Amino acid sequence: MKGVGTAVTKNNDVDIRQLVNALIDSYREEEEIIKLKAENKINAKVIVDIIENLRCLIFAGYFGSKRLKSDSMEYYAGELLEYLSYNLQKQIAKALRNQKDAVEDEDETEVKNRAQGITYAFLERLPEVRRLLAADVVAAFDGDPAAYSKDEIILCYPSIFAIMVSRLAHELYLLKVPLIPRMMTEHAHSVTGIDIHPGATIGHHFFIDHGTGIVVGETTIIGNHVKVYQGVTLGALSTRGGQVLKGVKRHPTIEDHVTIYSGASIFGGGTVIGEGVVIGSNAFITKSVPGQTRVSIKNPELQYLNDQEANREEFWDFMI
Amino acid sequence: MKGVGTAVTKNNDVDIRQLVNALIDSYREEEEIIKLKAENKINAKVIVDIIENLRCLIFAGYFGSKRLKSDSMEYYAGELLEYLSYNLQKQIAKALRNQKDAVEDEDETEVKNRAQGITYAFLERLPEVRRLLAADVVAAFDGDPAAYSKDEIILCYPSIFAIMVSRLAHELYLLKVPLIPRMMTEHAHSVTGIDIHPGATIGHHFFIDHGTGIVVGETTIIGNHVKVYQGVTLGALSTRGGQVLKGVKRHPTIEDHVTIYSGASIFGGGTVIGEGVVIGSNAFITKSVPGQTRVSIKNPELQYLNDQEANREEFWDFMI
Amino acid sequence: MKGVGTAVTKNNDVDIRQLVNALIDSYREEEEIIKLKAENKINAKVIVDIIENLRCLIFAGYFGSKRLKSDSMEYYAGELLEYLSYNLQKQIAKALRNQKDAVEDEDETEVKNRAQGITYAFLERLPEVRRLLAADVVAAFDGDPAAYSKDEIILCYPSIFAIMVSRLAHELYLLKVPLIPRMMTEHAHSVTGIDIHPGATIGHHFFIDHGTGIVVGETTIIGNHVKVYQGVTLGALSTRGGQVLKGVKRHPTIEDHVTIYSGASIFGGGTVIGEGVVIGSNAFITKSVPGQTRVSIKNPELQYLNDQEANREEFWDFMI
Repeated sequence: MKGVGTAVTKNNDVDIRQLVNALIDSYREEEEIIKLKAENKINAKVIVDIIENLRCLIFAGYFGSKRLKSDSMEYYAGELLEYLSYNLQKQIAKALRNQKDAVEDEDETEVKNRAQGITYAFLERLPEVRRLLAADVVAAFDGDPAAYSKDEIILCYPSIFAIMVSRLAHELYLLKVPLIPRMMTEHAHSVTGIDIHPGATIGHHFFIDHGTGIVVGETTIIGNHVKVYQGVTLGALSTRGGQVLKGVKRHPTIEDHVTIYSGASIFGGGTVIGEGVVIGSNAFITKSVPGQTRVSIKNPELQYLNDQEANREEFWDFMI
Repeated sequence: MKGVGTAVTKNNDVDIRQLVNALIDSYREEEEIIKLKAENKINAKVIVDIIENLRCLIFAGYFGSKRLKSDSMEYYAGELLEYLSYNLQKQIAKALRNQKDAVEDEDETEVKNRAQGITYAFLERLPEVRRLLAADVVAAFDGDPAAYSKDEIILCYPSIFAIMVSRLAHELYLLKVPLIPRMMTEHAHSVTGIDIHPGATIGHHFFIDHGTGIVVGETTIIGNHVKVYQGVTLGALSTRGGQVLKGVKRHPTIEDHVTIYSGASIFGGGTVIGEGVVIGSNAFITKSVPGQTRVSIKNPELQYLNDQEANREEFWDFMI
Repeated sequence: MKGVGTAVTKNNDVDIRQLVNALIDSYREEEEIIKLKAENKINAKVIVDIIENLRCLIFAGYFGSKRLKSDSMEYYAGELLEYLSYNLQKQIAKALRNQKDAVEDEDETEVKNRAQGITYAFLERLPEVRRLLAADVVAAFDGDPAAYSKDEIILCYPSIFAIMVSRLAHELYLLKVPLIPRMMTEHAHSVTGIDIHPGATIGHHFFIDHGTGIVVGETTIIGNHVKVYQGVTLGALSTRGGQVLKGVKRHPTIEDHVTIYSGASIFGGGTVIGEGVVIGSNAFITKSVPGQTRVSIKNPELQYLNDQEANREEFWDFMI
């Protein structure tokens, strides 16, 4: 290795060539993390752009540079739908081609037709997704005393963005589109800190307050009028099985009118949280809870010490 | 519905027209989530741009493409202030017009004058905000052994960005600007995972370490020299009242020189954490704590099992 | 102060001049948060761009607009390496100049030579970083039943992005580059909610599931085949010492094949988590754990109440 911090490179081109050669060797050695089939490559930036355009279409007039006017809504919707149908189709076709064994079974025309059919079926679902999101906005306004207006909720609540992306990604997941649904929800995860797998089924009037740190697993089922706070996990009991567990119901079922306070964790595919249940902060649940029950950590006892007492306690040795 | 995966669309235009019509119907049905009054529409991207320009003005010379020179600071500050006064005024006017009942009470000139007055009053507060932020940078450097320089703190600590945005948004909140303060803090929330409501009052020398998952509610009051770690919630005891609770003091008061370790939750508008208190990790507090006290979860007992013992325990059945 | 909301400003230029003057005064008063030496200023956007280009180089063909072809890999790698060597060198030189006392000890040529040497030494490490990341992708696929393909993991798993940035930043940290390593990991922290200090040492086959809220401190050492879930803290026992503690081992050592479930906290520089240990959710650990042990919070007892019973409990007064 060249001495760090002292070297004077006379010929930078020679160095670059050595680095290039080392990387080419590395590409051959770790070839499972390079992508050669460029025609299957899905562009993450295009997926983000598709999400932004879907948002413009759903919360029409709120986002983007175009204005919505009552006498020319067709132009607004038409332009966005043209963009979306073209680009979604293209990305879905890539995702289908990308799928294992896909290429061998289908010719190019068939892939394109499938992508077109899926795109159309997806875009047909937008009015239903809008109905659900309108109810989510109502749930947010009714449930949060800090909300000043529906505009505020639509324009800047992370919950609405995360739920919108989840609902859209879930439609594509149901249509068996590979890759793209998860790319969509991971984008929302990055923007909001809310990690909802596209497989999760979510009822109407869903509200997430604050949201950072929430995890909702792939096989979770959430009913109507459910309210979830920051740091809540709806998770799998064990994933040691790894790929063997694919498709198994691993995440809980949350029935209607359930509230789950911050930091609570609910685990397991057989765990059912009954109607009207309230789960207190930081509760750790691995069994079903019957309806109309309130569950909390028993006696979260606290110890109060003054500085002198604390100095004699090992715990505060550590903390302070 | 058209068959998914098999359809061959001869005439794509016909399809788009059907989708457009379905969306127009949806816009009429869920009209509460569309925005027709384009002149009131606040552009989220402009708000982000305003924040970036405010950061250039505050931490002068650190961000943006312009250079700060000691003999031409006027040009640096002047150019940014021109941009900010023009764009803030425009967005504040939109926010005022957007407010319920606002349009009926004021004519356009009055709205513009109010927006101009608010913008000026806000920009006049910048030197004071800078004074507080300079103290926050000192608190971060003194409080964090991982900090190598003040440059590092200013350039990349999420706490400094979140606190800067909070302090700026709080000034606009006090000037009763609708919408924009929350859009600002939700942008910071997205960037940092730190969710501080613009209503929160924060003293000098405030330090947040790591920060992800922190929630600070609207009516929280935080004193001077307070240090808060990741995952801490300063929250409301109950929000079941929803909009009825608007304006009520729902979040705690934290006095000077308090430290709150990771994952602790403090709830309630009447809850006062006295001067010099230290709250241990994961403590759950719903009552006031007298000054100079250290509060921790009592006996967070742990169970140690070897693999054989664990195999007989139901808990580990679940986890592993 | 000018009356808010009523003022009509005749001459906006006069106002701006007053605001500019107030800010110039503020720049002189809080001069520790302005940056005058423009030649040392590191551009945060260039650092993000460098990370994106490193990602294109490592997961070749997956990201960016360029296509990777088996017969012209040299052009792909060469173009990226040219960009990176030029821009990294430039930013590293700025970071070196920026360092305290640096300018006085070295002349400009020496700084440039050091920057060049470091850049080359860093780029030489890329094949090794790729080897580790290829193993991380395998660990993610094997460990997560929700993963559908390696493409999905590479394209959108936050863990892979955060670990990639950590591994790269750690190389620059070992080469004693100031500022830039932390700017890199704080960018990853912002994108993923995963906060790994560039000082942390991480073995192969590292997997982070979900990830939001994870904190890994500067002096942490993590072995091979370690799996960590959301909200886990590997932290320091106390940072009251502030800058005095710089360089001291303050964070734990995690040996091979350890799994740490969500919300667990492990503190202290002397704390060693032995081989094969499993730490249950929300456990709070401040002492070493011998190998092959499973540690959980003892009896996380829950209280179940119906609505009537709950109405008599003070706790539920608060929560509901």
